[in-house]
Amino acid sequence: MQTSFDCIPCLIRQALDAVRFATPDVTVHEKALRYVLTETSRMDLRQSPPAMARHIHRFIRKASDSDDPYRDVKKRCNQFVLDLLPELRDMIACAENRFETAVRMAIAGNVIDFGVYSDMNEEQVLNTVKSSLTDPLFGDAEAFYDAVQSAQTILYLGDNAGEIVFDRLLIEHLPRPDGITFAVRGGPVINDALLEDADQTGVANLARVIDSGVNAPGVILPECSDRFRRVFDKADLIIAKGQGNYETLSDTDRPVFFLLKAKCPVIARRIGCCVRDGVIVRTSI
Amino acid sequence: MQTSFDCIPCLIRQALDAVRFATPDVTVHEKALRYVLTETSRMDLRQSPPAMARHIHRFIRKASDSDDPYRDVKKRCNQFVLDLLPELRDMIACAENRFETAVRMAIAGNVIDFGVYSDMNEEQVLNTVKSSLTDPLFGDAEAFYDAVQSAQTILYLGDNAGEIVFDRLLIEHLPRPDGITFAVRGGPVINDALLEDADQTGVANLARVIDSGVNAPGVILPECSDRFRRVFDKADLIIAKGQGNYETLSDTDRPVFFLLKAKCPVIARRIGCCVRDGVIVRTSI
Repeated sequence: MQTSFDCIPCLIRQALDAVRFATPDVTVHEKALRYVLTETSRMDLRQSPPAMARHIHRFIRKASDSDDPYRDVKKRCNQFVLDLLPELRDMIACAENRFETAVRMAIAGNVIDFGVYSDMNEEQVLNTVKSSLTDPLFGDAEAFYDAVQSAQTILYLGDNAGEIVFDRLLIEHLPRPDGITFAVRGGPVINDALLEDADQTGVANLARVIDSGVNAPGVILPECSDRFRRVFDKADLIIAKGQGNYETLSDTDRPVFFLLKAKCPVIARRIGCCVRDGVIVRTSI
Repeated sequence: MQTSFDCIPCLIRQALDAVRFATPDVTVHEKALRYVLTETSRMDLRQSPPAMARHIHRFIRKASDSDDPYRDVKKRCNQFVLDLLPELRDMIACAENRFETAVRMAIAGNVIDFGVYSDMNEEQVLNTVKSSLTDPLFGDAEAFYDAVQSAQTILYLGDNAGEIVFDRLLIEHLPRPDGITFAVRGGPVINDALLEDADQTGVANLARVIDSGVNAPGVILPECSDRFRRVFDKADLIIAKGQGNYETLSDTDRPVFFLLKAKCPVIARRIGCCVRDGVIVRTSI
């Protein structure tokens, strides 16, 4: 999808959050802010928001002299949710429909997003998980459950660190574990999960893990690696987590189900849901 | 006060709201957005937010070929609150402390701000007024009540249309009506009140009305008219409504009390209150 004009102030706020996260040096903050303003004033607005964010965050890494400003917080997020695993597993074990509960948790885990909620804390994550168990799910959950049952091969597109532990829980409840490939980003961008996060959280023990080949907070297909594209083109089903994957893949002709929390009015309007809804929507294929 | 980096995404969002308000032409929206991004990338961040907003909104008026895009909505806002006057007067008449209630209402009226809440509706205004009667007030209300009693001359710096009717109610409860001067902006900017709004709402019948001489959503003293500066320099007390007046005058050496709703984290942090608090704070003189 194209970047909405409404995404621009949000991208600038995100960039400011990111550079503050990367360095306490106010002169770098100002330099990054002015750079992002200049760049966005010239950008092609037909690009998706993740394509623009990729460009912006590349500059922030350079300006702050850090190849991955979110590395530590990603590790901490992963560990925080790993520590919750026994509790989360108990919640699933007690549920009437375990698979549905694992799906709901995977969607709830999408609340861990430093691009949108820079001040998110552990209590908010736990509260979101708890309310996700009973909140209405927007979209077509039944079609997703059916698609999962019939797919022999699944490509699971991850989103953020921390959230990836919830993805692990869902993967544990998918049929045919041998047919699952889990994809992470091709390089550091915001708090998006990388290969090291798949290792830390045990996802790499459950599924084959690949990266997209692109360090964007979404999947910019024309730039992805050949290996990624081969898996993407052949999978019976693609599960895509989060807004960034939706923003880059909602127009694709592959069978994708998007599992996400709607975090902004632009996405909510496009999907037809409310901000904060848990969502399962598919491409129109 | 200087513009915080956090004000920049907000100024851009405001500009987008304003140009959409001014014209449905998407090409003008894009042109205005790119202009604002370029201009803010070069701006002196030591300017106050209203100084930057003045510059931005001047461009939007030009690009949308409208000298006052908010003229109609300002008239409607004024009329909406004028229609509420009997109800508001009853609430004051029944109050234990009528003057305090009029002050609380004047602060509640500051919620009418198209710069911050572009989608605000009448129900939200009414709810804010009702809750303002009992919500805690942040700051030094007692010092304000004392200052009002002892001042022979008061300069009352208005803020927005609609809100100005609440200002009228407070003016009706100030002692020494002959000593009151009410100031509006020097020209159209967002939904800020002008001379015509003071006329429409009857404020012009209660107080001498002047304009600041500057079409900024605040008081940029060095650029104000000589007439305004004379009144500003001589008044025993200055009552200043809203964030824009706070942002431009919080460092002045004149005796100013700011009456406002804290609408953003930058202002709330600076004042030491919470977002949405009703506030009475003074300059440190």
